[in-house]
Amino acid sequence: MTLIKEGDELLLYMDKRRTYKVRVEQDKQFHTHKGFIKLGDLIGKPYGITVTSSLGISFYALKPLIRDRVLKTDRRTQVLYPKDIGYILFQLGIASGSRVVEAGTGSAALTMALAEAVRPEGMIYTYEINEKHQKTARGNIEKSGLMPYVEMKLGDITQGIPEKDVDAVILDMATPWLVVPHAWDSLAGSGVFLSFSPTIEQVMKTVDVLNEHPFIEIETVELMLREITVAHNKTRPKTQMIGHSGYLTTARKVVELLE
Amino acid sequence: MTLIKEGDELLLYMDKRRTYKVRVEQDKQFHTHKGFIKLGDLIGKPYGITVTSSLGISFYALKPLIRDRVLKTDRRTQVLYPKDIGYILFQLGIASGSRVVEAGTGSAALTMALAEAVRPEGMIYTYEINEKHQKTARGNIEKSGLMPYVEMKLGDITQGIPEKDVDAVILDMATPWLVVPHAWDSLAGSGVFLSFSPTIEQVMKTVDVLNEHPFIEIETVELMLREITVAHNKTRPKTQMIGHSGYLTTARKVVELLE
Amino acid sequence: MTLIKEGDELLLYMDKRRTYKVRVEQDKQFHTHKGFIKLGDLIGKPYGITVTSSLGISFYALKPLIRDRVLKTDRRTQVLYPKDIGYILFQLGIASGSRVVEAGTGSAALTMALAEAVRPEGMIYTYEINEKHQKTARGNIEKSGLMPYVEMKLGDITQGIPEKDVDAVILDMATPWLVVPHAWDSLAGSGVFLSFSPTIEQVMKTVDVLNEHPFIEIETVELMLREITVAHNKTRPKTQMIGHSGYLTTARKVVELLE
Amino acid sequence: MTLIKEGDELLLYMDKRRTYKVRVEQDKQFHTHKGFIKLGDLIGKPYGITVTSSLGISFYALKPLIRDRVLKTDRRTQVLYPKDIGYILFQLGIASGSRVVEAGTGSAALTMALAEAVRPEGMIYTYEINEKHQKTARGNIEKSGLMPYVEMKLGDITQGIPEKDVDAVILDMATPWLVVPHAWDSLAGSGVFLSFSPTIEQVMKTVDVLNEHPFIEIETVELMLREITVAHNKTRPKTQMIGHSGYLTTARKVVELLE
Repeated sequence: MTLIKEGDELLLYMDKRRTYKVRVEQDKQFHTHKGFIKLGDLIGKPYGITVTSSLGISFYALKPLIRDRVLKTDRRTQVLYPKDIGYILFQLGIASGSRVVEAGTGSAALTMALAEAVRPEGMIYTYEINEKHQKTARGNIEKSGLMPYVEMKLGDITQGIPEKDVDAVILDMATPWLVVPHAWDSLAGSGVFLSFSPTIEQVMKTVDVLNEHPFIEIETVELMLREITVAHNKTRPKTQMIGHSGYLTTARKVVELLE
Repeated sequence: MTLIKEGDELLLYMDKRRTYKVRVEQDKQFHTHKGFIKLGDLIGKPYGITVTSSLGISFYALKPLIRDRVLKTDRRTQVLYPKDIGYILFQLGIASGSRVVEAGTGSAALTMALAEAVRPEGMIYTYEINEKHQKTARGNIEKSGLMPYVEMKLGDITQGIPEKDVDAVILDMATPWLVVPHAWDSLAGSGVFLSFSPTIEQVMKTVDVLNEHPFIEIETVELMLREITVAHNKTRPKTQMIGHSGYLTTARKVVELLE
Repeated sequence: MTLIKEGDELLLYMDKRRTYKVRVEQDKQFHTHKGFIKLGDLIGKPYGITVTSSLGISFYALKPLIRDRVLKTDRRTQVLYPKDIGYILFQLGIASGSRVVEAGTGSAALTMALAEAVRPEGMIYTYEINEKHQKTARGNIEKSGLMPYVEMKLGDITQGIPEKDVDAVILDMATPWLVVPHAWDSLAGSGVFLSFSPTIEQVMKTVDVLNEHPFIEIETVELMLREITVAHNKTRPKTQMIGHSGYLTTARKVVELLE
Repeated sequence: MTLIKEGDELLLYMDKRRTYKVRVEQDKQFHTHKGFIKLGDLIGKPYGITVTSSLGISFYALKPLIRDRVLKTDRRTQVLYPKDIGYILFQLGIASGSRVVEAGTGSAALTMALAEAVRPEGMIYTYEINEKHQKTARGNIEKSGLMPYVEMKLGDITQGIPEKDVDAVILDMATPWLVVPHAWDSLAGSGVFLSFSPTIEQVMKTVDVLNEHPFIEIETVELMLREITVAHNKTRPKTQMIGHSGYLTTARKVVELLE
């Protein structure tokens, strides 16, 4: 059984809306408006354990998953939802050992999900043009412990991609169509291109350029997620729903026969 | 650059509807109704390369991704779609090193996706009650090369789960509610339970039992995927759509305070 | 051309979020925080005309449609959306001359839509158990001028429906299944039953009772409406969406052969 | 109670997939592969009654609703679904007495729904450029008895609309943007424009032209309808669904201030 040890990051869960990411230290107290928690008391306990604050409120000590990190990530540049990230990871076909180019880094929510998917043997090359965003992203990745699997690059990916023979290129940026030719150069044969775009005009332009290059299986989809309330005599989809985050366009590089 | 070598499995892609999974052998010919292909000629070539059949038809030699395997899997027991599998992998929070219990194995489509996600250091324990299904599943997993990460179990998971301290339990079976108590026992603290069910009655029963055990973050969602046709003056969602595959119910194990 | 005349109700439209329903009187001023409007000046002008407030802000004088009234109706008891009302009217198959039973009246949003559909020769019999709701509803209907086509009934429709041979019965209430036997008695042969219910348990119970009576074409659907932003390089579905209002269950009365 | 009389059109319902529209005549037999029915026997019976064929199969004698006519209409040019028609009727705000311009007539499915909504005092002016379509449409409308409320026009609506001061203009045609200026001329102040278009490019062009004219409340939506199977332990949305029929763009004419 994995036990909580000093230095671990964990998620203190009070209720669905109130969760707190903390690092466990022997003599540290974590203060909430519901009393404080002696973090040292958690050392040696199993994950999932209940801990009571000085005011008698119960918290659960959860092991942070990547989806917790994504949701807790600085959201200023965040538009991707779990429904999209899950689909992206699966469509990219990446796993331990994969080498992936990403742009832009943003808050690194997707970067961390990609790094978790390719560790311990793969690498994410993530491009960001905005230095301030990159700094925020670096902090997020460092806290997650995933930095060994990430190479952060400050620069404009529309100018070219030096990495070659990569397994996948994933774009969440304003002008993905400008990257398509570089993505083809960078990808290994049979590698996967994926672009996430909120507007249909972005999709149209990207698909136009994809069609001009040796890509096959060019497809665009959108995902809708509906939450369901399940309770006796009250079972029903929730009234509010996210109607749109973005379109997901995928393609696969081929190499035309030259004889 | 990874080159095609003898013994590799690859996907011969003619068009979206006609793709063929083949194993490369020096002196083997692959016959289609569009002529035959000398597979030996592909050895030493890069993935993604075009190959021409004896009747002059072009095929692309793609590296099979897990999503290709899922789609190519024997579909007799298959109900999961890529939209669901991507979401499942992300919600489960699994990665290299994770230990996961699955039931039922079915055709092993999800088993392979899980194994790909946890390799090289994790393990999938997959339960199937139907011996014939298990045999089909074994064939699929063996071809994928993922068998080192899978332990196949023939038996009824509603009778108990001997594996303990696992990171996740994922159920795609008729009576998931009967497994909930065993899933709680089997999961490590903070571990994730996920059940995929086509009907709302299954969801209601499963959530009822989840509520009777120390689980938090009990949530049910459904995912809808719409394909978009992108073409000049013809851009629009496709007319036909899959309206429903199943509901996805997740929860997280906690350990109540005992003092 | 229909011109605005004294006594007309009209809709002063400033922008999408700010519209005001007013009655035109010769010497009345309508005050907004953007200045006042002399309503008498509108008499003899065509609908759709621009009118400028004392502070120089433009308003449009629109002719109120039923959908304006529905949206402007007191929303305390309102759960129906235009997407649902349009579908209800079409599925009920009602038109001028139809006789329709409705319960509950609520704020009369649907009542007014029904009355508008059956005028000048039909009649809506609308049941409400809550006297306060009925009073609010009466005010709404009177302002709309549709009272000649509505008979308001204070009482519990689960106790029976005295009207016979009606063309349609439409229910938006907590326990529609208790009304199904009375609806069958009340409907003309071939008449339409429709129930709007937020929860799936309500639907299950209602369909159970429908199945026990001579009804055919028993069907349940749900409608989702997505708004699309259309603007240069910004075309996309809106982020926020109503994910669920209610399920719509329809059926048609038949008379079993008795020989 | 309305009884079936000679000359009535009725719908013989065998099951969901097998319904037949017939005209009642004293000495006519209606032949199906399940035996024949003596239609004269139905005269004087109430609607909804069961009738048994010569082979002992039960049929129900239903009164045809507009939605039955829409579904039974020649579908060669049909793209509108009940979900869209209901929404269109409600958004147009039409009722008895309304005058409406429609193009194209197509098979007249929507024409009949419009006519039913505006009778007994309104009029539908429906434009069709294809003489063969118009002929089919005429047959459909005549059988429905709604011809008194329809004026059929053979011609190209992009060349202008002679009708003035109409309450609504509804377009289901390839190039709605070419009609927008004529629609503005034709509409009464405050009147409603609505266009149904399958592709987003049509929507973009139409909204562009709407924005150049005095229209307000320019809005585009799409409607998705999901059928739900309701049965003990099998309750769930159906697997197959119509993912897209078309976008619905509405606007309302205003008259800019001229002082």
